Amino acid sequence: MRAAVMRSKRLVVADIPMPEPGPGEVRVKTLACGICGSDLHALKHAEAFVEASRRAGSVFTMDLGRDVVMGHEFCAEIVEHGPGTKKSLPVGTRVCSRPGLVRSDGVRTVGYSNDTPGGYAEFMRLTEALLLPVPNGLSTEHAALTEPMAVGVHAVNKARLERDDAPLVIGCGPVGLAVIAALRLKGARPIVAADFSRRRRDLAMAMGADAVVDPAQHTPWQSWRQAAVWQDASRAPQLPPWIPGPPLRPAVVFECVGVPGVLDQIMAAAPRGTRIVVVGVCMERDTIFPMLGISKELALQFVLGYTPDEFAETLSQIAEGAIPAAPLITGKVGVEGVAQAFEDLASPEQHAKILVEPWR
Amino acid sequence: MRAAVMRSKRLVVADIPMPEPGPGEVRVKTLACGICGSDLHALKHAEAFVEASRRAGSVFTMDLGRDVVMGHEFCAEIVEHGPGTKKSLPVGTRVCSRPGLVRSDGVRTVGYSNDTPGGYAEFMRLTEALLLPVPNGLSTEHAALTEPMAVGVHAVNKARLERDDAPLVIGCGPVGLAVIAALRLKGARPIVAADFSRRRRDLAMAMGADAVVDPAQHTPWQSWRQAAVWQDASRAPQLPPWIPGPPLRPAVVFECVGVPGVLDQIMAAAPRGTRIVVVGVCMERDTIFPMLGISKELALQFVLGYTPDEFAETLSQIAEGAIPAAPLITGKVGVEGVAQAFEDLASPEQHAKILVEPWR
Repeated sequence: MRAAVMRSKRLVVADIPMPEPGPGEVRVKTLACGICGSDLHALKHAEAFVEASRRAGSVFTMDLGRDVVMGHEFCAEIVEHGPGTKKSLPVGTRVCSRPGLVRSDGVRTVGYSNDTPGGYAEFMRLTEALLLPVPNGLSTEHAALTEPMAVGVHAVNKARLERDDAPLVIGCGPVGLAVIAALRLKGARPIVAADFSRRRRDLAMAMGADAVVDPAQHTPWQSWRQAAVWQDASRAPQLPPWIPGPPLRPAVVFECVGVPGVLDQIMAAAPRGTRIVVVGVCMERDTIFPMLGISKELALQFVLGYTPDEFAETLSQIAEGAIPAAPLITGKVGVEGVAQAFEDLASPEQHAKILVEPWR
Repeated sequence: MRAAVMRSKRLVVADIPMPEPGPGEVRVKTLACGICGSDLHALKHAEAFVEASRRAGSVFTMDLGRDVVMGHEFCAEIVEHGPGTKKSLPVGTRVCSRPGLVRSDGVRTVGYSNDTPGGYAEFMRLTEALLLPVPNGLSTEHAALTEPMAVGVHAVNKARLERDDAPLVIGCGPVGLAVIAALRLKGARPIVAADFSRRRRDLAMAMGADAVVDPAQHTPWQSWRQAAVWQDASRAPQLPPWIPGPPLRPAVVFECVGVPGVLDQIMAAAPRGTRIVVVGVCMERDTIFPMLGISKELALQFVLGYTPDEFAETLSQIAEGAIPAAPLITGKVGVEGVAQAFEDLASPEQHAKILVEPWR
């Protein structure tokens, strides 16, 4: 089958063996698969990616000397049931799935392993028990956004928002946009979001942000402070007289950049008691000043992925239109276009999410 | 009055002006004042301390070109009421107080400011409204431990422990020992504690630890895993078959070292979902690998100080014997002994807490 293959740290189009479904597995035809920022990182910093994964004890451990087919944000169609399957979903059913192949000896990732090709290939094998049928009315391309949008739903759940929390989203790439959609879903408003890119700020508004900020113009915290004033003054805490300005609601910041230095900037600027949810995946070492965290009693919650329930809920919410998907998709390519798409995604002014359609 | 003064980054004994109580303030005679690890750091890394405080927007902003009298863990005796005081506690009353002078334009710290001498001097001025009388049966030296023990009470409160959480205390200096006492008070057991020093491990046992570990011998996590096995197997979560070993209770780690690199070590070794409470005050820059936090969804809660209620509760609990104080005190000096005491405290084999008794 044809696939966009990561080989010797480059993306090439190649013919590779068709994956055979094992017990409890199905073969699916890939209909659409989003390109994730982590894939860009895995290609550009392959050794660092594997080393960081190894040190973290995670499952993303690839042998870079062998082929890898990435792609873990997909919508696919069942073409064949493997041995020992229940066949509750017939051939031809469109499905989404968390990108993991569950076997008796552990989980292999779909998209970051040598033996389990991801969605940049014509076919994949998936675990039958993980399949979710795509509701009839939902387009394939929107269904393919389930995975990245579930990341936002999970991040917002892990934030354990309370009634008065005032959110700030730093970075409006696909992760930040997913967080904005999930905040909107929770009714946590007003939502302030910051990004250097005009295009991404527009997307943030389309996804449900109430105010956007260009950090090159002024600090996101200025807009946040305006948004975080208590509307119901009777709920505001009493401040000592020497604290300037009105009392503000508790800050919950979503770090959706994942580049060294951003965490330090947030910790330096955040008000006392801020909770920081780290959603951006920084794979390099980073420098923090613990004294900043200590003196303001900051909390950091690192998050990853989503639960099975969150994944299923996200698919439903996209189908019901409660999570907007359309604004995110800014391009489509076939397998031969994947390498160029990776280049294009490096510029935030052009794209949010590019979908790979292997049969295009 | 006589005081141990930080002058040109050295500790010298000097005669300095007697502090005059302002409106709502009292003059107190310092009876005993503990030496805090932060004081050692402030002396040794004075510029870094002030710079870190400045960047953190905290109140510990001293002019190092002028004298500073440190000491913020004290028990004192009222000798004179300033103007506009209520005099509800008569002259001669032994008192504890949070180390802050509350004025109409803000709070000055007692112990880290140029104009408000701390407890390494014969007299201090304190805000009357903050004074807590020392219960009759409680010794002055134990009352002086209220401040450092309140740090432990606060850290454990901020950990928001749940029924099944299994604690691990990294570092058994005064901060770690205070955390152990507070964990014991909460009934969060078994308590596993780690320190390279034999003396400190013995102190940890005296303060209520159930097991102690020398990290030079084996990883603290080995002992923690033994302690964290579910006693009531019906409460344990089901693990997939490929996860080795028995299911373990959720880990809550108290970082009580405050030296660069420790946070990274904890993040690397911690099991998935661990909550890390950062109590040790690291004033330098530190390196972390966010990927470690992300892949295991770790949470970090930085903490500082205590609330007024926690401070008062700590004094009561020491008075009732529910927080052991006696093991902590390993030495006493007069003002002329402060410089040597700072040297001695650098070696963990000798000391936990040295009290300064200015009238000794």
